[in-house]
Amino acid sequence: MQTVDKKYVEIRLKNLRGEMSKKGVGISILWDPDNEYYFSGFRAITYSRPIVLLVYPDKTQYIIPALEDDHARINAKVDEFFVYHEKIQNSHLDTAYHQILNRILDVISKEEVLALELDIIPASVYEMIKGKGFKIKDIGQEIIGLRAIKDEEEIYWLDQAGRLSDIALEASFANLKPGMSELEFDSFGDRKLLEIASGEYPDKIVGYENWTCSGIERSSMPHLYSSTRKFIENDIVVHSRQVWINGYRAENERTFLIGKPTAEQKKCLKIAIEAQKIGLEMVKPGVKAKDVDIASFKVIDEAGYGDYVQHRIGHGLGLTEHEEPYLRFDNELVLKEGMVYTIEPGIYIPGVGGFRHSDTIIVTKDGCRSITKYPRSLENLLF
Amino acid sequence: MQTVDKKYVEIRLKNLRGEMSKKGVGISILWDPDNEYYFSGFRAITYSRPIVLLVYPDKTQYIIPALEDDHARINAKVDEFFVYHEKIQNSHLDTAYHQILNRILDVISKEEVLALELDIIPASVYEMIKGKGFKIKDIGQEIIGLRAIKDEEEIYWLDQAGRLSDIALEASFANLKPGMSELEFDSFGDRKLLEIASGEYPDKIVGYENWTCSGIERSSMPHLYSSTRKFIENDIVVHSRQVWINGYRAENERTFLIGKPTAEQKKCLKIAIEAQKIGLEMVKPGVKAKDVDIASFKVIDEAGYGDYVQHRIGHGLGLTEHEEPYLRFDNELVLKEGMVYTIEPGIYIPGVGGFRHSDTIIVTKDGCRSITKYPRSLENLLF
Repeated sequence: MQTVDKKYVEIRLKNLRGEMSKKGVGISILWDPDNEYYFSGFRAITYSRPIVLLVYPDKTQYIIPALEDDHARINAKVDEFFVYHEKIQNSHLDTAYHQILNRILDVISKEEVLALELDIIPASVYEMIKGKGFKIKDIGQEIIGLRAIKDEEEIYWLDQAGRLSDIALEASFANLKPGMSELEFDSFGDRKLLEIASGEYPDKIVGYENWTCSGIERSSMPHLYSSTRKFIENDIVVHSRQVWINGYRAENERTFLIGKPTAEQKKCLKIAIEAQKIGLEMVKPGVKAKDVDIASFKVIDEAGYGDYVQHRIGHGLGLTEHEEPYLRFDNELVLKEGMVYTIEPGIYIPGVGGFRHSDTIIVTKDGCRSITKYPRSLENLLF
Repeated sequence: MQTVDKKYVEIRLKNLRGEMSKKGVGISILWDPDNEYYFSGFRAITYSRPIVLLVYPDKTQYIIPALEDDHARINAKVDEFFVYHEKIQNSHLDTAYHQILNRILDVISKEEVLALELDIIPASVYEMIKGKGFKIKDIGQEIIGLRAIKDEEEIYWLDQAGRLSDIALEASFANLKPGMSELEFDSFGDRKLLEIASGEYPDKIVGYENWTCSGIERSSMPHLYSSTRKFIENDIVVHSRQVWINGYRAENERTFLIGKPTAEQKKCLKIAIEAQKIGLEMVKPGVKAKDVDIASFKVIDEAGYGDYVQHRIGHGLGLTEHEEPYLRFDNELVLKEGMVYTIEPGIYIPGVGGFRHSDTIIVTKDGCRSITKYPRSLENLLF
């Protein structure tokens, strides 16, 4: 099962209520599944059936679909449940989440200030709530701030995810050969990872995702899904391996070269590795997010490849694929112990290829440590 | 590459413009990645970098992040591109999507009616657009209506996805043994599917997802991610196998029994199979969505298990995991040729287990045909 220890849910709710109180907010109405998991320990497969978490100063409520009823009652650390139904036998009960939400809101004083995640909640739901006459504030940035500093339990799972991602990378490389497709290369890592996870982490949810961009054209585009394209002799490949366990994610990316790389390809990979090294060395409490990005970019720019950079050096990581805050040239945020980032400067040159390693790091008391440890040097990445 | 033939993009845009014209809408501003793919042939890995598609009566525009620039220009059938940047060298250019969107909207007459997907677009973006004084209408239901009827190219890829899902199911079953985990069981299917897809569909994006719920407790909960729980003798298992190729998805689910099932387990699986059979027989043009759900539920209810149903009989399928419209007891929608649904009645009994097959069907001229064909009978699902 995927869940959060009650102790941590209580601390997180206390922190959220502290933020609500500072903003004069009476009730937070949360929509984002990762935020809901963070504050309740319950994560469902959602899609077409919304789940809503209401946080009051003294209680919490969940609005859930009937098919999640048992699942939620086992995992969710929540005070009250309201269930909506979708079979004809229960047509006399609530059959949509908004019927319940409406009823709850209708008995709340219109003087109450409500908080929503305005960058996440759909416009139609926002309009429905706002239409009742409540004053609405955004609680999104406060939650991002709370989630940015990881607690003990989160760091434990991040470490496990990092370890599993290294095991998967190693297995993919051990089976690498020209003629296999990007997706087949990924699957050797998946298989090993699931074997190890099944043996060592009983009854846990483990997931993974890979984006493998092979050849000059595909590797020059930073962000593509793995495809059925087959590796050929002298390919350059940017391989992104992502693993999550109990909800927490590690991103582990290596650029590698099959056969004989050109002199420029070797040179560019070395520059990308050096830019990442400088980024990793920069990270410590007190440093600004922007300074990490700028210092790393400078390495690439001074080597003459600044025109071929297309993205920031990294993003926050934890429950969500990309979490704010971002390590971007314009972000004044001061880094703190317990934050988690990817460090992944990239160079993408049409006709030459793409060059990017990514590691996931945790900010420590006086620097950072990487939860992904696969070797980064060129010599280890020639096949 | 994942893309759509230009011919279909043009037909779809023509249909959308027809809907816009009927509603008196001048510009549609689309946010949903699947809608964007449908109307442009371009699908990116998005997350923290929004992509916005603007559809006018006579042109289309894309707002994209710099790291998707080359990728979008190869795949997107769009008239104009606007790019936002995230490196310090380009800090004099646009560095966020909303700067571009603002500038575009600022030169448009405030008399213009804009259409948004109100169930999808975040409240903060909606507020920004609305704050400029435009009249706003929802275009979500019209797009759902257009997407619900699949064209020739979509049906081709749905058929390939169905075929690949059957191959994967077969490979998982061929390797089934007690002691393997749910995730390991899934991975045998994944591996075979990727091998076949890599051989037969060059340079295509293929993806998959599995939800395997084994044992009495887990199978009784309809919707759980696969875990590291290991199969034991006499387990009942609900296995969901989902595959997509070029964006189009098949859902293929089988309940199977390891070792010696109890008499009640065998009985319940037979009821679930019969309920699905009735559902499959009901589907044809002219029938209402509700009638399929009600007829199938009746089979389970008359057998005495109506209390153990928790969800509708099925959902639309195509580009998105769950697409509207839904086959639900309260949906008056009349089915039409070219619609695609899952047919998946389920029974979930605490202490006994869960029972659900799911097949993906296309509504034909006089009935329906299943794109997933793995055998459904009890005899084929005892291991």
